[in-house]
Amino acid sequence: MNFHVLTLFPDMIEAGLHTSVTGRALQNGYIHLNAVNIRDYSKDKHKHVDDYPYGGGAGMVMQPEPIYLAYEDITQNIEKKPRVVYVTPQGAVFNQSMAEEFAKEEDLIFLCGHYEGVDERILEEIVTDYVSIGDYVLTGGELPAMVMIDAVSRLVPGVLNNEESAEFESFHDNLLEHPQYTRPVEFHGKRVPDVLLSGHHGNVDKWRREQSLKRTLERRPDLLEQADLSKDDEKYLKKLKKDLHDQA
Amino acid sequence: MNFHVLTLFPDMIEAGLHTSVTGRALQNGYIHLNAVNIRDYSKDKHKHVDDYPYGGGAGMVMQPEPIYLAYEDITQNIEKKPRVVYVTPQGAVFNQSMAEEFAKEEDLIFLCGHYEGVDERILEEIVTDYVSIGDYVLTGGELPAMVMIDAVSRLVPGVLNNEESAEFESFHDNLLEHPQYTRPVEFHGKRVPDVLLSGHHGNVDKWRREQSLKRTLERRPDLLEQADLSKDDEKYLKKLKKDLHDQA
Repeated sequence: MNFHVLTLFPDMIEAGLHTSVTGRALQNGYIHLNAVNIRDYSKDKHKHVDDYPYGGGAGMVMQPEPIYLAYEDITQNIEKKPRVVYVTPQGAVFNQSMAEEFAKEEDLIFLCGHYEGVDERILEEIVTDYVSIGDYVLTGGELPAMVMIDAVSRLVPGVLNNEESAEFESFHDNLLEHPQYTRPVEFHGKRVPDVLLSGHHGNVDKWRREQSLKRTLERRPDLLEQADLSKDDEKYLKKLKKDLHDQA
Repeated sequence: MNFHVLTLFPDMIEAGLHTSVTGRALQNGYIHLNAVNIRDYSKDKHKHVDDYPYGGGAGMVMQPEPIYLAYEDITQNIEKKPRVVYVTPQGAVFNQSMAEEFAKEEDLIFLCGHYEGVDERILEEIVTDYVSIGDYVLTGGELPAMVMIDAVSRLVPGVLNNEESAEFESFHDNLLEHPQYTRPVEFHGKRVPDVLLSGHHGNVDKWRREQSLKRTLERRPDLLEQADLSKDDEKYLKKLKKDLHDQA
């Protein structure tokens, strides 16, 4: 899968994604990253890419022409018109299903805005998806684009190895993860729970499942409605709720 | 304000935040960034920071000791116990009010997890806030930490200049932004709306307000309930709704 990013800060994009899982996927060729500097397409001798807004007001607006030329340069080698994601607080909020949808594309272009915004005409001309990564205000579109590329990459076949995939899948059963413990057995006076040292797989699985259920009940009870629960799960939750009620 | 990040990828954090508005704020000393490599605190001769999970299962878990030593190194120079944010899909979802709350702190520590997770005992010992940046799965805590640092930095006095502040404030009146236009007057056959070229400030303001209202009605009608609307706004919205109804 090919990710193209139209940005004023290509180095930031490269540095952020050439690490860890996405870095490995880039090296192994499962994904490709093409961070394009919009400034390279400015015809202005000072390489300006922004100008004052018509009608007045604070700040500068990114001009349509350099963005268009950069876009054209990318798309001339792509057969069908690709999806172009504009990162904006005004967009639909990104989530895992959107990541799954994006992962089906061969090419995906991100347009990262800055300053007070981007000329409306270029947005109308090239953008297919207006997307926000959450309800908070950021300086530019670069970090959100990197976040989306990370989330989408994990869904591209080959990017995660078998172990990672298995673990990743477990996020999808709508329960929160159980706590994890590793060496040493005792840390600052706290021991690893005995059951995890017992070597009894059945008991370990039962304990982990119960911890997941407990944590989900405590922190995200809304998730339980969509979770796939066994009869034992239901029984345990009933007991937990009763205990909580008795304590109150 | 001081941001400390406990991470396995300090270079990624540095590269991502030494750009644009946060880069300028770092240079001018309004914010400080301290990306600490957890690996530097491993006592293992191979500098390992993770180990197999007790009880079995896929993947590796980050050990408590190196994280604790890195944390101790940071906090020995801080008077009161700082807030420690652990980035996790199991956390409360980050939003603008949380950013405002974090911006009141003198020091803020982020702990970025990787692999299958982090030993539960170190989380219990140092973490004060479990935070997620949205409903999607990412490789590690680095990108979310950078996103939060960007959002929080913008609220630190001095980080935004006057123009930027004024524009930023406008995000808070609960209406979406009006479209922006800059040079050239004509781009691919599309002209800048005449009103913006008229030089008549009253008409420009009216047009922009109406565009904001229209866009909010179309894309995020939920925001209108909390928006601060004048009588003229209400009248315009009523007309818009009638037009939409007549078209349908």
